Amino acid sequence: MIVVLERGCSLKDKAAVVRFVEQAGGRLLVSELGDTSHIGLIDDRARSLADQIVAMPGVDRIDQHAPPYPQVSREHHGHDSLVGVRDVTIGGDDVVVIGGPCSVESAEQIDIVSRGVAQSGAKMLRGGAFKPRSSPYSFQGLGEEGLLLLAAAGRRTGLPIVTEVVAPEDVELVATHADMLQIGARNMQNFRLLSEVGSQPVPVLLKRGIASSIDELLLAAEYIASAGNSQVVLCERGIRTFETKTRNTLDLSAVPVLKAESHLPVIVDPSHAAGDRKLVPALAAAGIASGADGLLIEVHNDPDNALSDGPQSLTIESFAEAVNQVRAIASALGRRVAA
Amino acid sequence: MIVVLERGCSLKDKAAVVRFVEQAGGRLLVSELGDTSHIGLIDDRARSLADQIVAMPGVDRIDQHAPPYPQVSREHHGHDSLVGVRDVTIGGDDVVVIGGPCSVESAEQIDIVSRGVAQSGAKMLRGGAFKPRSSPYSFQGLGEEGLLLLAAAGRRTGLPIVTEVVAPEDVELVATHADMLQIGARNMQNFRLLSEVGSQPVPVLLKRGIASSIDELLLAAEYIASAGNSQVVLCERGIRTFETKTRNTLDLSAVPVLKAESHLPVIVDPSHAAGDRKLVPALAAAGIASGADGLLIEVHNDPDNALSDGPQSLTIESFAEAVNQVRAIASALGRRVAA
Amino acid sequence: MIVVLERGCSLKDKAAVVRFVEQAGGRLLVSELGDTSHIGLIDDRARSLADQIVAMPGVDRIDQHAPPYPQVSREHHGHDSLVGVRDVTIGGDDVVVIGGPCSVESAEQIDIVSRGVAQSGAKMLRGGAFKPRSSPYSFQGLGEEGLLLLAAAGRRTGLPIVTEVVAPEDVELVATHADMLQIGARNMQNFRLLSEVGSQPVPVLLKRGIASSIDELLLAAEYIASAGNSQVVLCERGIRTFETKTRNTLDLSAVPVLKAESHLPVIVDPSHAAGDRKLVPALAAAGIASGADGLLIEVHNDPDNALSDGPQSLTIESFAEAVNQVRAIASALGRRVAA
Amino acid sequence: MIVVLERGCSLKDKAAVVRFVEQAGGRLLVSELGDTSHIGLIDDRARSLADQIVAMPGVDRIDQHAPPYPQVSREHHGHDSLVGVRDVTIGGDDVVVIGGPCSVESAEQIDIVSRGVAQSGAKMLRGGAFKPRSSPYSFQGLGEEGLLLLAAAGRRTGLPIVTEVVAPEDVELVATHADMLQIGARNMQNFRLLSEVGSQPVPVLLKRGIASSIDELLLAAEYIASAGNSQVVLCERGIRTFETKTRNTLDLSAVPVLKAESHLPVIVDPSHAAGDRKLVPALAAAGIASGADGLLIEVHNDPDNALSDGPQSLTIESFAEAVNQVRAIASALGRRVAA
Repeated sequence: MIVVLERGCSLKDKAAVVRFVEQAGGRLLVSELGDTSHIGLIDDRARSLADQIVAMPGVDRIDQHAPPYPQVSREHHGHDSLVGVRDVTIGGDDVVVIGGPCSVESAEQIDIVSRGVAQSGAKMLRGGAFKPRSSPYSFQGLGEEGLLLLAAAGRRTGLPIVTEVVAPEDVELVATHADMLQIGARNMQNFRLLSEVGSQPVPVLLKRGIASSIDELLLAAEYIASAGNSQVVLCERGIRTFETKTRNTLDLSAVPVLKAESHLPVIVDPSHAAGDRKLVPALAAAGIASGADGLLIEVHNDPDNALSDGPQSLTIESFAEAVNQVRAIASALGRRVAA
Repeated sequence: MIVVLERGCSLKDKAAVVRFVEQAGGRLLVSELGDTSHIGLIDDRARSLADQIVAMPGVDRIDQHAPPYPQVSREHHGHDSLVGVRDVTIGGDDVVVIGGPCSVESAEQIDIVSRGVAQSGAKMLRGGAFKPRSSPYSFQGLGEEGLLLLAAAGRRTGLPIVTEVVAPEDVELVATHADMLQIGARNMQNFRLLSEVGSQPVPVLLKRGIASSIDELLLAAEYIASAGNSQVVLCERGIRTFETKTRNTLDLSAVPVLKAESHLPVIVDPSHAAGDRKLVPALAAAGIASGADGLLIEVHNDPDNALSDGPQSLTIESFAEAVNQVRAIASALGRRVAA
Repeated sequence: MIVVLERGCSLKDKAAVVRFVEQAGGRLLVSELGDTSHIGLIDDRARSLADQIVAMPGVDRIDQHAPPYPQVSREHHGHDSLVGVRDVTIGGDDVVVIGGPCSVESAEQIDIVSRGVAQSGAKMLRGGAFKPRSSPYSFQGLGEEGLLLLAAAGRRTGLPIVTEVVAPEDVELVATHADMLQIGARNMQNFRLLSEVGSQPVPVLLKRGIASSIDELLLAAEYIASAGNSQVVLCERGIRTFETKTRNTLDLSAVPVLKAESHLPVIVDPSHAAGDRKLVPALAAAGIASGADGLLIEVHNDPDNALSDGPQSLTIESFAEAVNQVRAIASALGRRVAA
Repeated sequence: MIVVLERGCSLKDKAAVVRFVEQAGGRLLVSELGDTSHIGLIDDRARSLADQIVAMPGVDRIDQHAPPYPQVSREHHGHDSLVGVRDVTIGGDDVVVIGGPCSVESAEQIDIVSRGVAQSGAKMLRGGAFKPRSSPYSFQGLGEEGLLLLAAAGRRTGLPIVTEVVAPEDVELVATHADMLQIGARNMQNFRLLSEVGSQPVPVLLKRGIASSIDELLLAAEYIASAGNSQVVLCERGIRTFETKTRNTLDLSAVPVLKAESHLPVIVDPSHAAGDRKLVPALAAAGIASGADGLLIEVHNDPDNALSDGPQSLTIESFAEAVNQVRAIASALGRRVAA
């Protein structure tokens, strides 16, 4: 629910509305949009105040149908957000390709892969150090050691790094070394973790849960934004359906829907959706054609011996080819992938 | 299950295998692939003969894991199939855009829309005359009258026409007037209808059911092919998932999967999947980027007053823009959309 | 949309409303509910008349939110429907168990199974003669021969028979021999077939499609009812989800939802949902506990050698045990399964 | 993968196998099942040792197909587990009904509801203090204050209490006051949280995620068990499907599947699946009929004014009626619900 104030509403009237809502126990969010002020009432209890608010001086009208995620909604912000990760900008004309291995496995592996993706057009480096795995007996990642190896590879290649954080108590450690924090699909509704990454300044890559609706993804982003960090990039990575030929079903309709509903940048992860490297180039191309601002692609120097997600990892060579095709499509759409 | 004969296997040995299978009551399909002969045993009862067959002269080996849809499988045919619809070829370098209204509503409407799509790059005209509708009280199409109006519009514009057929007893009538017969998503497992369109020569556009797996789509295509008609084009049009922001979830992973599993052409229908015309251009672009051979797009001269599917129909103007974007992407991929 | 007339509305006023709607091209359905008359306007075009209708003499109010399936909706009929199949009544206090093989395979097989289920508490016999199969190379049923064998077994045991009909042109033949016509899940939206079984008098067992919503099932029932046959029993048989441990996911919530939305009887088919005979007794018990009026269970004298659906077929012995458990539960709920 | 030792295998031979696996870096789990010893190799890397292990003295055979969750699998333990929560036993002949509000809202509310459910046959009390909510602006629970109110109500009524824990750092606090810790659906794959509740002794109620397969639920239980806590009760609470008439689709097939695959007790939560209190009694009855060991039901003294989940909460009166019906069904199945 959004309270729209009249153009030229006095500061005094505005303050009176804010005070009234707060005294009634409501939470609110004030934004200036063009030359009007919008007060988002972001608490169900505040709805009961609507009749009284609409009668106050300076109030133009109340929009009961405004979406429940005011800070990340397109309605509330007129322009596309840009998210800066060191010298890389996500959400502008440049399509940002992020490449790297599912897991950091060794100094040698991350060195080879990071140099390979850097030479092939990647602008950021990904790699898992803390891995959430369905089985307690699967490889769980190298932890802090992996994080340090990834950071070193990022420094050597000049690529900003993004890596997953899986628990609130790890956020501080990971944020010390990473340029961007990834929230994985399984943790998209780990609300404590969302609040934690929301109350620190490193930008966040938020992956859609495999059974999460688009609305729930936007509400998860709102958790982060409402805790203070609006540097959020959304990531479509496939949803769970009845189809078994692919690991998940990449929902590319989500890209234009998210761009319409929200001002946040949107990227696509074709690797996890496909679960099969043969499908990744076509889905990467389709992702960019659907309007995505970037790609997150798993790359490994020796996929057949990878400790995790080998079947869906591209080799460095096939990554380079896929990026070339993506570059051609981006160019056809008036966007750019750095050479 | 496929029996692969030795290179240079004599005609006599080959005939002996065929005779043996047939006498045992098995059904088979003989194909020449390069310089070897493949005998597809397409009946479960034939599997029990494997041990005896493999010992016969001229037999190289038996592939037990060959897919259950031999005639449409990629494994069994080495090259991409081309499906010709009058002077249009689907499956080659040219990306074929098919446009037109959900339903033929009147002579004037189909005249305006057919001229509009023809001028914007469509190479074929679509339009519904017999409509399957979830409610018995919804508009069911104009029937034969609609079919004649569509055929007349096709003649005037020179565009081949494709229209849906919903019952076996209508196949002959529809095939008299249409250049291509569409099997809709709801009828993908109407096996009697599949057999009927399989036993006549007009090419078939087969849409994936909303809850059909990729394997089931290929088995449905096999129904048509095994009845004698191998001129089949597959169409991905969205599957049913938990997401409610779109009418269905367009499964673009299906495109590279189908291209890998089958030699048949594959097109994408972004309109039914989206259910919202704002999403159609992005999904059309993504469909071509994923490797599809064509697009099926709903277009209406006055979408807000359409008798069916108005919300997802493009106007003629937005269709022209969408085709331009698709043309740029096709060109980036080394393919072509006619001007 | 439902027009509710005033209590004591004169015949003249009522006729005037009916005439007005019909002259405007609207379709309608008049029902007497208690001491008021309800006129269901079952055509979208009729909605535009609402303002004029509500001003006519004798009209109490218009309910715009009445469900789109007036004839089968609970709202429109105050009492539970009873569907009679010869001397068996479905929908009353007696829980009706229907047993039999997936396919009729031979005279001997149907004889053994029919006697077995009759002795174990089944009140009706099922068996497939015309089988819809995903692959063109699978066993398609014995056709008319199977139908005659089933009818003979029904006569010998005194059990009414239900069997599937898969195409409009077969309805007359099947209706000559069967006591109830089954519409299978794959044909739930084969609207031509629905209309055909709706325009003849034999009662219909309508199975929910594997990806059909509850609303779509009720609309399919409305197709049959609106064609003139209101003797329809609904059947929940599992929907397609991501879970692969079972063939489909039995949606028992559908039972109380259907009972609330519709006056039609509802039965449950635990066999197709489970795909595994070990699960069938528990799901049969749960189905009756959820409020179903009956069960449709696959039984075979030699499941391991069945030509179709063997893995999910109960033996005659395990069927007898399952029925005993169902009888105990029915009794706990104040219902009855015949001994 | 399970190594089965010969009956009467010497301690020396057994130790040699264990030492060999450990030296090769494999993880293992030794269980005595009847008079044979089973060594579960619970690490993929250990599989490569199979050939060498099978040749060692005392080894009978290797079962490559043993499930990946050895500690919770039925195969590995021959008998049903009983989980004790103070004086209540879950998994035995007694069906355990757990009732209480979604959220603890006030001292008065939890007092009324706890007395009400205790008088109606509940053997345990549920209530949320830490609530995970999709929106950051929804009521998040009373936190520690709610926990203390719930514990006090448990003491007054004599009912053991179960409440959700949402973050690893809260486990110690919640375990101090609660008799059983609930892991909610959204946290089923919060592996850090699973490990944390696994390394303390209070029993755990583990809910299935809304898009989690049965295998993933069992792997999540294995996380808890492998961390040292085998007192785990599984809970089916509905999965996400395309159907929108219910909040989720209760998958009662999961009950017999889980009972077949695992020795852990299984309960059903009909409230969250239904999302509508009218459906809860039928689904509670069906849950017990499907073989569940208990029920988790939301009850509120004033559902229409509940701060969360009001629409699906039973009143105290309707809870009492539902328990009576469940008692009758349990009795028909030879089980018992305390009066």
